Amino acid sequence: MLNRVRSAVAHLVSSGGGPPPRPKSPDLPTATSAPPAAPPEAPRSPPARAGSARAAPRKIAEARASFSRPTFLQLSPGGLRRADDHAGRAVQSPPDTGRRLPWSTGYAEVINAGKSRHNEDQACCEVVYVEGRRSVSGAPREPSRGQGLCFYYWGLFDGHAGGGAAEMASRLLHRHIREQLKDLPCWPLQKEVTHESLVVGAIENAFQLMDEQMARERRGHQVEGGCCALVVVYLLGKVYVANAGDSRAIIVRNGEIIPMSQEFTPETERQRLQLLGFLKPELLGGEFTHLEFPRRVQPKELGQRMLYRDQNMTGWAYKKIELEDLRFPLVCGEGKKARVMATIGVTRGLGDHNLRVCSSTLPIKPFLSCFPEVRVYDLTQYEHCPDDVLVLGTDGLWDVTSDCEVAATVDKVLSAYEPNDPSRYTALAQALVLGARGTPRDRGWRLPNNKLGSGDDISVFVIPLGGPGSYS
Amino acid sequence: MLNRVRSAVAHLVSSGGGPPPRPKSPDLPTATSAPPAAPPEAPRSPPARAGSARAAPRKIAEARASFSRPTFLQLSPGGLRRADDHAGRAVQSPPDTGRRLPWSTGYAEVINAGKSRHNEDQACCEVVYVEGRRSVSGAPREPSRGQGLCFYYWGLFDGHAGGGAAEMASRLLHRHIREQLKDLPCWPLQKEVTHESLVVGAIENAFQLMDEQMARERRGHQVEGGCCALVVVYLLGKVYVANAGDSRAIIVRNGEIIPMSQEFTPETERQRLQLLGFLKPELLGGEFTHLEFPRRVQPKELGQRMLYRDQNMTGWAYKKIELEDLRFPLVCGEGKKARVMATIGVTRGLGDHNLRVCSSTLPIKPFLSCFPEVRVYDLTQYEHCPDDVLVLGTDGLWDVTSDCEVAATVDKVLSAYEPNDPSRYTALAQALVLGARGTPRDRGWRLPNNKLGSGDDISVFVIPLGGPGSYS
Repeated sequence: MLNRVRSAVAHLVSSGGGPPPRPKSPDLPTATSAPPAAPPEAPRSPPARAGSARAAPRKIAEARASFSRPTFLQLSPGGLRRADDHAGRAVQSPPDTGRRLPWSTGYAEVINAGKSRHNEDQACCEVVYVEGRRSVSGAPREPSRGQGLCFYYWGLFDGHAGGGAAEMASRLLHRHIREQLKDLPCWPLQKEVTHESLVVGAIENAFQLMDEQMARERRGHQVEGGCCALVVVYLLGKVYVANAGDSRAIIVRNGEIIPMSQEFTPETERQRLQLLGFLKPELLGGEFTHLEFPRRVQPKELGQRMLYRDQNMTGWAYKKIELEDLRFPLVCGEGKKARVMATIGVTRGLGDHNLRVCSSTLPIKPFLSCFPEVRVYDLTQYEHCPDDVLVLGTDGLWDVTSDCEVAATVDKVLSAYEPNDPSRYTALAQALVLGARGTPRDRGWRLPNNKLGSGDDISVFVIPLGGPGSYS
Repeated sequence: MLNRVRSAVAHLVSSGGGPPPRPKSPDLPTATSAPPAAPPEAPRSPPARAGSARAAPRKIAEARASFSRPTFLQLSPGGLRRADDHAGRAVQSPPDTGRRLPWSTGYAEVINAGKSRHNEDQACCEVVYVEGRRSVSGAPREPSRGQGLCFYYWGLFDGHAGGGAAEMASRLLHRHIREQLKDLPCWPLQKEVTHESLVVGAIENAFQLMDEQMARERRGHQVEGGCCALVVVYLLGKVYVANAGDSRAIIVRNGEIIPMSQEFTPETERQRLQLLGFLKPELLGGEFTHLEFPRRVQPKELGQRMLYRDQNMTGWAYKKIELEDLRFPLVCGEGKKARVMATIGVTRGLGDHNLRVCSSTLPIKPFLSCFPEVRVYDLTQYEHCPDDVLVLGTDGLWDVTSDCEVAATVDKVLSAYEPNDPSRYTALAQALVLGARGTPRDRGWRLPNNKLGSGDDISVFVIPLGGPGSYS
């Protein structure tokens, strides 16, 4: 996440080295004990190999302190070095040999061009078994086993100010979701409480519990920085896309683009941030004003009239400049340069509990929300073909690639492969990552149109919605 | 507005009889001095006749204390009595003789079936002259005069707990908008501050100033209750639809329905209300909980698990019931029965400064927003035909009529008239009001399908977007 957190690392409280706190409940996932998410005997579409890091939790902490990539990439020590090479920026995908990801999901990633030491994106793809739930008769196409229930899960985590939060979320968030789904009652319930709204609530709660766990364990486990989280849950015929941050998900269906997320940035969340600053002025510490101005107000403009926007407004109006309007604006800058408190360019996600305003002790976390927006797509309402896909990407992809360009690449790449070739989705993910990275030229990474490619970490999932090798 | 405010009237602080406070600025509109909005010599499409009430401001206060209808209805004393008759519920429209409303706008209204003593809806339709502004060269089709600028204006105001707020807003809101538009600078400005965003800001500010004026003058001028406000401003080729409340505006264009507003109710604004209760618990007075439950929690359920929704959630999850969860929910009920603090069924509008929770001194106003949502429709982007209309209606219309039914009535009525017959839009407004009111049968007002018609006040504007007699 290029420049998302300005000077933030320098203000992180250093992590202590004491013993990890005990988890609040034995049921809750913990950073130090991570039992396999899937049952011992995997269901029809098995999860990716539980890597050695999962089997030896103590090693996770060590690996985190240095560098780790998603276990499903099955990287050798040499492969891990290549994935960590800023000069070559080799695209990484799961190996063609061995088990494929569920649904023949495609995945590709590339490290940034030098903006941070390691790739701060993380990814997870699992089939998760929920114990103790009865399988629902007549529910379409989900694997089930005994009294339990399975859901499919994909997650992209884009870290900033360190890779710890993204790494922790990639290991644990789906376990929080599993715990929440254990609570699903036998439906139907009251009219307004649909099964769908319970799954949405379970995902929302899981995000909050994940964030609270990061707050509790940040000292003991070096959970540095924060991360955006974009996750997909498939359960009982429906796809739930939950997004907290500036990653993006779109469905490309028969060439049509269906947005499945929105980005949460200081610009899109201006009114929420301003409202909070207005209702809780103590959070601004006398350093910031919750009002927005088209440009920074100068002291000599005191008493003059200037355009402004308040928390309730979408348009601009005039006000007379007062002394407190000279404070720095809570929300400032445009586009990718927009910042909350001059520090962070994304307004939802996990972690960031130690983030402070530059040269200040003022915490930024109160303005950040860990709650995702969840959109639901009913897979049973449409007959999907093998070329219909759900594309997830971190902002490294979307900064330089439009939805339409992604749809064009979907068409171009998939039409070059047989519909039943399961490797076509990985080829598509690689093409998307390569198209956003570009090639080294003129002392930079350049796209074919000679514009700069993305220098950020780039990670892409391509999830087929109706192709061979999928769930059907 | 049927049952919108439960037991609210009884808790209104009675208005004092002292002298009216002085306005803050000589520029601001006041309740006691209302200069004509249009210039002495009317532009091409002249405003409706400035009624005697406008010319004699002292009489306005007296009329308000009893009963008044929009001046453009030109009601005689006998007509006023018929408009006030709950038994007959005669539909009122401007007379066929004399000047038509601007753009040949159609209008019709009917009083409620007895839920309040008078019709608490009010309406306004004016051409408003903004002094001191240069006419913009090349700007399409708006009337201009000298250094000034004109805008067209339509407003519907649906009062509750008394008619004072709606009556005051119908007389003064467009003057606040006029004052704000005087501030419009010569454009272009900074990139992000478009002319459109300045008009939006002017309308937003005008709503706020109108609400503040009601707060200041509530004692001196008997501004009882509150009102929803739905207003349309046409300026420089664009239609601005501003809505605060549960009235609704739709465009019917070539049979297609384009929503131009959303309703603001305890259900649609649940998360905003809950957030406020969460951040400012003192506003709940220890009587309410900001959490939502599917049903009222019983004392015997203390310690048990129950579904809930918090301010950040769209789905439902579980929590253990604690003592404070036994408080009454801030937001409660479904559909038309949904209430804030068990009192009011609409969450945006003007006035309500005296509104208290039943059997309590807890003010409800902090949870109500006076800010409208403003949607913009560019009239120049489409070649409109005489059958394309913007329909505004109070909830009396929409409670029993769907968007599609309105579109069908648009088609049916307009096709029965010549395209150049200017009376067709009034006929359409009357048909819509009659269709929502129904006919007296089985001791009630019934629709043809035998369902109950609306017993509420019903008011409808039909604004032609491209027909003869319009602005073109």
